[in-house]
Amino acid sequence: MKADQVPPVTLAELRSELVHRHRQLVDYRLVVWTAGNASVRVPDSELFLIKASGVDYDALTPSSMVLCHLDGSLAEESELSPSSDTAAHAYVYRHMPEVGGVVHTHSNYACAFAAVGEPIPCVLTGIADEFGGEIPVGPFARIGDDAIGQGIVATLSGHRSRAVLMANHGVFTIGEDAKAAVKAAVLCEDSARSVLLARGLGAPRVIAQDDVDALYERYQNVYGQR
Amino acid sequence: MKADQVPPVTLAELRSELVHRHRQLVDYRLVVWTAGNASVRVPDSELFLIKASGVDYDALTPSSMVLCHLDGSLAEESELSPSSDTAAHAYVYRHMPEVGGVVHTHSNYACAFAAVGEPIPCVLTGIADEFGGEIPVGPFARIGDDAIGQGIVATLSGHRSRAVLMANHGVFTIGEDAKAAVKAAVLCEDSARSVLLARGLGAPRVIAQDDVDALYERYQNVYGQR
Amino acid sequence: MKADQVPPVTLAELRSELVHRHRQLVDYRLVVWTAGNASVRVPDSELFLIKASGVDYDALTPSSMVLCHLDGSLAEESELSPSSDTAAHAYVYRHMPEVGGVVHTHSNYACAFAAVGEPIPCVLTGIADEFGGEIPVGPFARIGDDAIGQGIVATLSGHRSRAVLMANHGVFTIGEDAKAAVKAAVLCEDSARSVLLARGLGAPRVIAQDDVDALYERYQNVYGQR
Amino acid sequence: MKADQVPPVTLAELRSELVHRHRQLVDYRLVVWTAGNASVRVPDSELFLIKASGVDYDALTPSSMVLCHLDGSLAEESELSPSSDTAAHAYVYRHMPEVGGVVHTHSNYACAFAAVGEPIPCVLTGIADEFGGEIPVGPFARIGDDAIGQGIVATLSGHRSRAVLMANHGVFTIGEDAKAAVKAAVLCEDSARSVLLARGLGAPRVIAQDDVDALYERYQNVYGQR
Repeated sequence: MKADQVPPVTLAELRSELVHRHRQLVDYRLVVWTAGNASVRVPDSELFLIKASGVDYDALTPSSMVLCHLDGSLAEESELSPSSDTAAHAYVYRHMPEVGGVVHTHSNYACAFAAVGEPIPCVLTGIADEFGGEIPVGPFARIGDDAIGQGIVATLSGHRSRAVLMANHGVFTIGEDAKAAVKAAVLCEDSARSVLLARGLGAPRVIAQDDVDALYERYQNVYGQR
Repeated sequence: MKADQVPPVTLAELRSELVHRHRQLVDYRLVVWTAGNASVRVPDSELFLIKASGVDYDALTPSSMVLCHLDGSLAEESELSPSSDTAAHAYVYRHMPEVGGVVHTHSNYACAFAAVGEPIPCVLTGIADEFGGEIPVGPFARIGDDAIGQGIVATLSGHRSRAVLMANHGVFTIGEDAKAAVKAAVLCEDSARSVLLARGLGAPRVIAQDDVDALYERYQNVYGQR
Repeated sequence: MKADQVPPVTLAELRSELVHRHRQLVDYRLVVWTAGNASVRVPDSELFLIKASGVDYDALTPSSMVLCHLDGSLAEESELSPSSDTAAHAYVYRHMPEVGGVVHTHSNYACAFAAVGEPIPCVLTGIADEFGGEIPVGPFARIGDDAIGQGIVATLSGHRSRAVLMANHGVFTIGEDAKAAVKAAVLCEDSARSVLLARGLGAPRVIAQDDVDALYERYQNVYGQR
Repeated sequence: MKADQVPPVTLAELRSELVHRHRQLVDYRLVVWTAGNASVRVPDSELFLIKASGVDYDALTPSSMVLCHLDGSLAEESELSPSSDTAAHAYVYRHMPEVGGVVHTHSNYACAFAAVGEPIPCVLTGIADEFGGEIPVGPFARIGDDAIGQGIVATLSGHRSRAVLMANHGVFTIGEDAKAAVKAAVLCEDSARSVLLARGLGAPRVIAQDDVDALYERYQNVYGQR
């Protein structure tokens, strides 16, 4: 499928929305300088949009979002190279068809857990609500080929969590769309912060599994507007 | 009592003020995404207003505040569902007639104490001023029925503190109105922050009870404008 | 001396400047809600201006600054009560004639040191520059009479430091004017933050006394514009 | 070379850009009050621009940037004294001809490492990307002569890192221009924050040297736009 076969209005809207999602990453202080990116799958297509590599967040415009095929190759003529993490995003879209948005950050508290290779334990109801249990650690992998994507998919497939802490690296989150992936990134960092602070006080109490199950079930099905 | 029996100007003012109070929760960084809410009792009525569930703080308008009976049921036709914490707020209003405002947050430093199940000790005069002693821990309770409300009321009834750390969950605060409940939420997190940081240095010194009593007495009766 | 004997333009300017100084305390996140205050001596008079008690920082105007005699009594008809810390500020102005501005905060990292009753050690050149050594701890004292003022004056008289950590309470800083006192409050919290974080890594190295002396001497006499 | 021999448009642009770079230091919270500065080499000249000493960041204008010779002496008539760190910046420009920008901060997390005299270990891919290994510690040196400059140059010459933690002092970063030096200052503090937080959880895992080398190589040569 080529870019010009996508309904222009939809693609333009997706580009604008993706600029807004990067703005949220900045406002929630999940990213600094140019270190982090979001992408969104173009519905009913084999395409996704992703941030251009190394462009300042303040300078992002809809045209800074690069249209790519699901193999990571450019799907339009572009003066801009896509994010250096494009291969990882593309791998996720290829192997997790339910995923419509992917976010990558190096948010500080989550990175602290990634640096020591520990999952974020489920010690707060908010973690049970959003992640359905602990937030898992994925393998260490060099950037540049499919290794990071494979690690994300292997860790999150069949797992309730929409966030993975890639060891010694950072956070990847997934969602049904870009908004949901940003939400998971925000709540992953917020959870990491509360839990790390709690560790400074003592040993946080892990919530019982049946409580975790009930909280997750309710939050996924009752919370919010219908 | 029905919504249309409330003086419209007053209800409209309460709705606007409640939007403002949510803005304060955001500005003080006590809430992220949609995770936190405030409510206010409608004076001289059996009603209260509360945030709609899952609505972004930036998108809140007076009409995002849902009017409820004190049993938590809707008191007006509304396209919006009220907060998933409505039952807890309602329980507090039913059982603590002196309470005019309730706030719920997952602010990070307070949640750290909640995660380990420790009260915030009264080691700073500001804690004695506002809370009259330590900030207590309430029981763990699943969301969805009266359990959380019962835990709040059981912990705060007869206690000077206007804030309770619900175990493995977050903070609930009360006040004579929404402003006072927001103030308690702000000062609870500020207290938690200073005390947790102090714990990184050593063992903070607890203030003697007679000093706590004198500070609380003065702050409640002398501080501020008459 | 009565208020109407002060050149009006000067007093008006001082009021406006003092509003601005409170804005800086908010912007540097040294104060929350209404918990903190600044004052300024009216030059060539026996008067000082101080924030009204319990007024929101966002609502401050020049007329929210209350003119007081050096004994802490009102020097003008005012609908507003002065800060509950007025007695402490007044005591400092009476006993330290070189002081033209006083600031009081409960900034979090400095309060952590105050809660454990430890001075902030001089382990960074910035601390030597501004404070000329460690930032000392003052005694615990109840609010309401001269005890806090006495503790501040006893601790800072003859000491290089312009900041004192009042035990289990918070920070008081002094300066030749309100700007200098705000600066000391900003740098006290910044110093406390770096040192407390360092303590999480290990034992910070104290700077040798002759280096401290040289740094302090230079910063006080060479830094900045002539 | 005299100031009037520099193409005016270029010099004016450099002055404006340097104001903007100081704004970034404030926005990223790397500096408080007046404690930090940036400079930029004037291309094809023996001159550089640096912040005036002790001027508030909010008050900076292009004319607050003082033009200096590479020996640190004034290269133009100026009512303003240059930064008290001018000698250190000048020393770097004289001895590291590849450097076009220098930044100095006392950012808190990096200062924590400086206070204990520990390098920031390379435990996150982002550190490998930008710094090519650990961020090293430089010697303690008094301000005022070439000692600080010598320490910076001795530590960074032949090292991949663009940042040095000067013991008991703060951070100096270098870059091909002012933007690159600011970027290094932002990422140094961000790295320090994640690593210090990780230390609160346990012992972060150091990345294997061949992985560090591969990450650094790729980031320096593939990342961003061509």
